[in-house]
Amino acid sequence: MELAFIESLKQRLPPHPQLRLGVGDDAALLALSAGQDAVVTTDLLAEGTHFVRGETSLARIGRKALAVNLSDLAAMAAQPVGVVISLLLPRAGALELATGVYEGILPLAAQFHVAIAGGDTNTWDGPLVLSITAIGETTARGPLRRDGARPGDAIVVTGDFGGSRAGKQFDFTPRIAEALLLHNRYDLHAGMDVSDGLSLDLSRMCAASGCGAMLDLQMIPISPAAQATSVGDANPFAALARALGDGEDFELLLAVPAAIAQQMVADQPLAVPLTIIGSFIDKPGLWQPSLEGDLAPHDPLGYQHS
Amino acid sequence: MELAFIESLKQRLPPHPQLRLGVGDDAALLALSAGQDAVVTTDLLAEGTHFVRGETSLARIGRKALAVNLSDLAAMAAQPVGVVISLLLPRAGALELATGVYEGILPLAAQFHVAIAGGDTNTWDGPLVLSITAIGETTARGPLRRDGARPGDAIVVTGDFGGSRAGKQFDFTPRIAEALLLHNRYDLHAGMDVSDGLSLDLSRMCAASGCGAMLDLQMIPISPAAQATSVGDANPFAALARALGDGEDFELLLAVPAAIAQQMVADQPLAVPLTIIGSFIDKPGLWQPSLEGDLAPHDPLGYQHS
Repeated sequence: MELAFIESLKQRLPPHPQLRLGVGDDAALLALSAGQDAVVTTDLLAEGTHFVRGETSLARIGRKALAVNLSDLAAMAAQPVGVVISLLLPRAGALELATGVYEGILPLAAQFHVAIAGGDTNTWDGPLVLSITAIGETTARGPLRRDGARPGDAIVVTGDFGGSRAGKQFDFTPRIAEALLLHNRYDLHAGMDVSDGLSLDLSRMCAASGCGAMLDLQMIPISPAAQATSVGDANPFAALARALGDGEDFELLLAVPAAIAQQMVADQPLAVPLTIIGSFIDKPGLWQPSLEGDLAPHDPLGYQHS
Repeated sequence: MELAFIESLKQRLPPHPQLRLGVGDDAALLALSAGQDAVVTTDLLAEGTHFVRGETSLARIGRKALAVNLSDLAAMAAQPVGVVISLLLPRAGALELATGVYEGILPLAAQFHVAIAGGDTNTWDGPLVLSITAIGETTARGPLRRDGARPGDAIVVTGDFGGSRAGKQFDFTPRIAEALLLHNRYDLHAGMDVSDGLSLDLSRMCAASGCGAMLDLQMIPISPAAQATSVGDANPFAALARALGDGEDFELLLAVPAAIAQQMVADQPLAVPLTIIGSFIDKPGLWQPSLEGDLAPHDPLGYQHS
């Protein structure tokens, strides 16, 4: 429902003189009068859909609700400024629930110097819901969009992929500092964060940019968690499939001119590794080398919102 | 729970160099680097708590979810720029629900030139939830805060009060244009929108401003809806009590220097009436004239979030 609805909604939305970038990227860009762009993103986590209360601590749930928003700001190379936080709290134990989720929100907000600017706190008879909107600002380098990849660009990623259910889905570090450093120091053509699966999100960057991508499957950085959960799996490519499709990695996926990508990888300017995992090509779609040395189609793996 | 929790949260929130105004006013002010303030507010409507599906059309529910946010921007005399909209849709009929609420959102967004900048659309097994965050910008006159009322100021309101359940709670016009015109043309000391009840919200403006207020009960503009629902009520003051306490009027409550307030009321520059309903005084609390010509305490009427 989600994607089809959003597509039809996009068709109905009129252009707006202050909306520099709207539905479709990781965050929106609103041009304010003083010439400053506000970067705005929102994500909602609902009990039973995005988390199971009891399986996960309240602090981890609260932390994640903020972290996914910060990851969207990182995807735009935006500096976070503030957030507003709306909570729907089950009436039974509402105060403990609110206190619990803020135990995870407050330290992460402090770590990234994000102001908690307001919100709307309600009790009801339904499950726990957290809805956070984050506001950031672009740096002098402007926003990093997902639609700027060009054929010949290298596909560069931070960190490793797969197996985030083992913990990274809650404990990941939003790549704010990494995105700001890279965007400031190198010429990046496009960027997004990987939330629904590396190859699915790559296919989205390709679609937004009007190009395709050739994956170098040997270069995909597979996380130790994906390796560990694949031990004994009958499929010899299980760990690779997890890295490509698990999602919730919240790493950066970048399109970078080839020579600059080589320099980035040689520099390794981050605490987390940078890896070239393929290149963007003219031909639309995702591709991988065939055994015959030709192009074989690569079916995107990942979480398709239904 | 809500107020006590927010009070304790406020104590825990560290100051932030870009947070010019945080939890406690109708909207927050985030200072962006270019010297522009972003005005941010968020409100969430949940089925069963804020509306009953079936009793109210989806379009009215969607319209209200946006309108309450615009009313908060009006309260700050901010010009709306854009909104992000998160939906939690019951799985059964999700597409119809989403389409239905947008039938109310889109025309109001167009009317107030608000960009729909993005959102997060989810299906789940729970009730319908709409969470909207609105971003606006202050004009050259700066923000209108609720903490600037001074003893001697007149209490000025737009429109009339009470009985909003008969329809105004859904159909009200956010007082954006009115707030911008008044803030531009007159010297206003403080402003807020009336959502929880005129006298309760007035008591909040007093508390924020460190003063009290003397109500001129004869001057309270009572809506025709409040009059109509009070016909035959044994309490002769039923309509007045409704005007003071019903809430969801979404009119403006302003603190205005006395001479300027007189001028405003003489000018009547809006399509909706402006009325002086009392004055701010040194003595904390709300007061009304006693039969002895003295001050009698006025117990705030309105919706106390529990």
